[in-house]
Amino acid sequence: MKVDGTHYRSLWWDADKDALQIIDQRWLPHEFRTQSVETLQGFADAIIQMRVRGAPLIGATAAYGMALAMRLDPSDVHIAHAWEFLHNTRPTAINLRWALNRCQAALLPLDLADRAGAALTLAHHIADEDVEINRQIGLNGLKLIQDIAAKKPSGEPVRILTHCNAGWIATVDWGTATSPMYHAQNAGIALHIWVDETRPRNQGALTSWELGSHGIAHTYITDNAGGHLMQHGHVDMVITGTDRTTRRGDVCNKIGTYLKALAAHDNGVPFYVALPSPTIDWTVSDGVADIPIEDRGAREITHIVGRNDAGEITEVQVTPDGTPGGNPAFDVTPNRLVTGLITERGICDASEAGLSAMFPDLAG
Amino acid sequence: MKVDGTHYRSLWWDADKDALQIIDQRWLPHEFRTQSVETLQGFADAIIQMRVRGAPLIGATAAYGMALAMRLDPSDVHIAHAWEFLHNTRPTAINLRWALNRCQAALLPLDLADRAGAALTLAHHIADEDVEINRQIGLNGLKLIQDIAAKKPSGEPVRILTHCNAGWIATVDWGTATSPMYHAQNAGIALHIWVDETRPRNQGALTSWELGSHGIAHTYITDNAGGHLMQHGHVDMVITGTDRTTRRGDVCNKIGTYLKALAAHDNGVPFYVALPSPTIDWTVSDGVADIPIEDRGAREITHIVGRNDAGEITEVQVTPDGTPGGNPAFDVTPNRLVTGLITERGICDASEAGLSAMFPDLAG
Repeated sequence: MKVDGTHYRSLWWDADKDALQIIDQRWLPHEFRTQSVETLQGFADAIIQMRVRGAPLIGATAAYGMALAMRLDPSDVHIAHAWEFLHNTRPTAINLRWALNRCQAALLPLDLADRAGAALTLAHHIADEDVEINRQIGLNGLKLIQDIAAKKPSGEPVRILTHCNAGWIATVDWGTATSPMYHAQNAGIALHIWVDETRPRNQGALTSWELGSHGIAHTYITDNAGGHLMQHGHVDMVITGTDRTTRRGDVCNKIGTYLKALAAHDNGVPFYVALPSPTIDWTVSDGVADIPIEDRGAREITHIVGRNDAGEITEVQVTPDGTPGGNPAFDVTPNRLVTGLITERGICDASEAGLSAMFPDLAG
Repeated sequence: MKVDGTHYRSLWWDADKDALQIIDQRWLPHEFRTQSVETLQGFADAIIQMRVRGAPLIGATAAYGMALAMRLDPSDVHIAHAWEFLHNTRPTAINLRWALNRCQAALLPLDLADRAGAALTLAHHIADEDVEINRQIGLNGLKLIQDIAAKKPSGEPVRILTHCNAGWIATVDWGTATSPMYHAQNAGIALHIWVDETRPRNQGALTSWELGSHGIAHTYITDNAGGHLMQHGHVDMVITGTDRTTRRGDVCNKIGTYLKALAAHDNGVPFYVALPSPTIDWTVSDGVADIPIEDRGAREITHIVGRNDAGEITEVQVTPDGTPGGNPAFDVTPNRLVTGLITERGICDASEAGLSAMFPDLAG
């Protein structure tokens, strides 16, 4: 999508530098900085430090990481090493494993001499594929928004609540949850987005940055506010992304998603999840029981990053010295609370029947 | 409760200085500062600048303000002047009006010479009465905690989640939601408190400070985390406070309380609300429909206050410039989600029948 009138993807290959370029998202929404990633450690740091974030973008980044690894040493042992090294950066992210497995399966049969070139071509392909998947998700979700808009007086906005940043900067382009919004905006439908700030990392500020840059009306709210807004009829639908969806449609997403799904259910508000099929984990059924949840450091909770009066990006401590913080990064929304899944092939029920009918080739 | 081993109330009379002492809460949780309040302007500043905060504490402070006013000039005209002057500090605070009306009604019939002494006695009485109400709430809530503890292996902590700060520093002592916790701690029951940070004002940091100062084990979490913790069996009960409870037991409390109640209900976790009877609004039944919700400024959301590296209390901006913020300050939890109300007289159902049986003298 556009930044100051220029179209960007969230990663791209610079042929002159012969290296991957990323947006260092730690500086967003305050500063737009790009950087070159040129070492395997650089790839790991980019993922661990959340310079790149969002399941699809992490997957694509890892594919480029594997491409770099193949330049350095195309041996089978080094494929295994790179797989392990890159995978250990964010264990919850299913796309990371998916992308690495895909690279490994494609590369192992090749001659050593061909692996570096093939790995780079595959990384490009994974990135392009992500863009196309998200475009299709957007077109499918657009229909839901059009249906709501059609029932409203002309010009009255469709009000959509979203959590975290499942936006274009969490993917290669378009985003997942945001793709229907961008498509609706481009189609001239009036929108108003409720943006959850999404503690602890306040990714809602990224969503606000994205939406504002594209001219979509929105309001930034605390994570606590959504239930109240739904009780009072101010939300027409919820669309979130997902980091991992089980074969029966349980949705593992940013911590707090479950609470919004409960509120949507309690107030009869449709709750949709936008997902590219690579985020489906066909090996898991019961998400609450079987998805391990990443516990991140307490400092993300006890301290908050922002811009001070002098314009510097800095951190303040909110809690008393020594306060213990607990930081589960994701939660699981059971399928019973999910109205439907917006995939690149269409919209289906959040159920094993729904998903396997939509993806018979993947369901196994 | 205790701060570094010393017992404090959040206000107290210093006989040597012959003046009221308060904790200047603007510096919490980072610094513990006390001050003497010795002028009528000092009382007004303490309330306006939120050096004292929390409805019960504001009420008691105002009563001491009236006592000072009576020393300066016990005339009827000055009672009216002091009422007006103190009331204008936070005109929407119900306990402020309640305390000032109570003082006025008690003082006007008295001889001028008796008013200063009577006003100080009444202020002491109002403060002591608040302490006693909260103590009784604690003793009643303690039974619930004892019941849970009795079903656990010895030494395994009772894990209680709380939202916002319904603690002793929002009252004269004990707090409301925290009072059962302090009583349980004093009774030797192992506890672990999950403290919601409570965006946007992060009052969870105050609760952490309180609990830490009194030696109660706790973990500070985002408001998003509670649902996940309940799904995984890490929460034995929820206790919150309330700003206003309707005659049928709908609970208006800090924004986000409703989401925790939904999660508790979905996971079979008991959800209790601790309330002194003065917070019951017998004139309202349907809380969602009939309680107006205060919308506060966007800056509370877009900016966050904390302590920087240099030890200064400062503010950082989290969102992009110009991001619109929405800030509803409270929400309403319908009575169907509330397991019970912990009052100074006992525990009752969150229903009109439950409340009017407990308070037949007030229900009307």
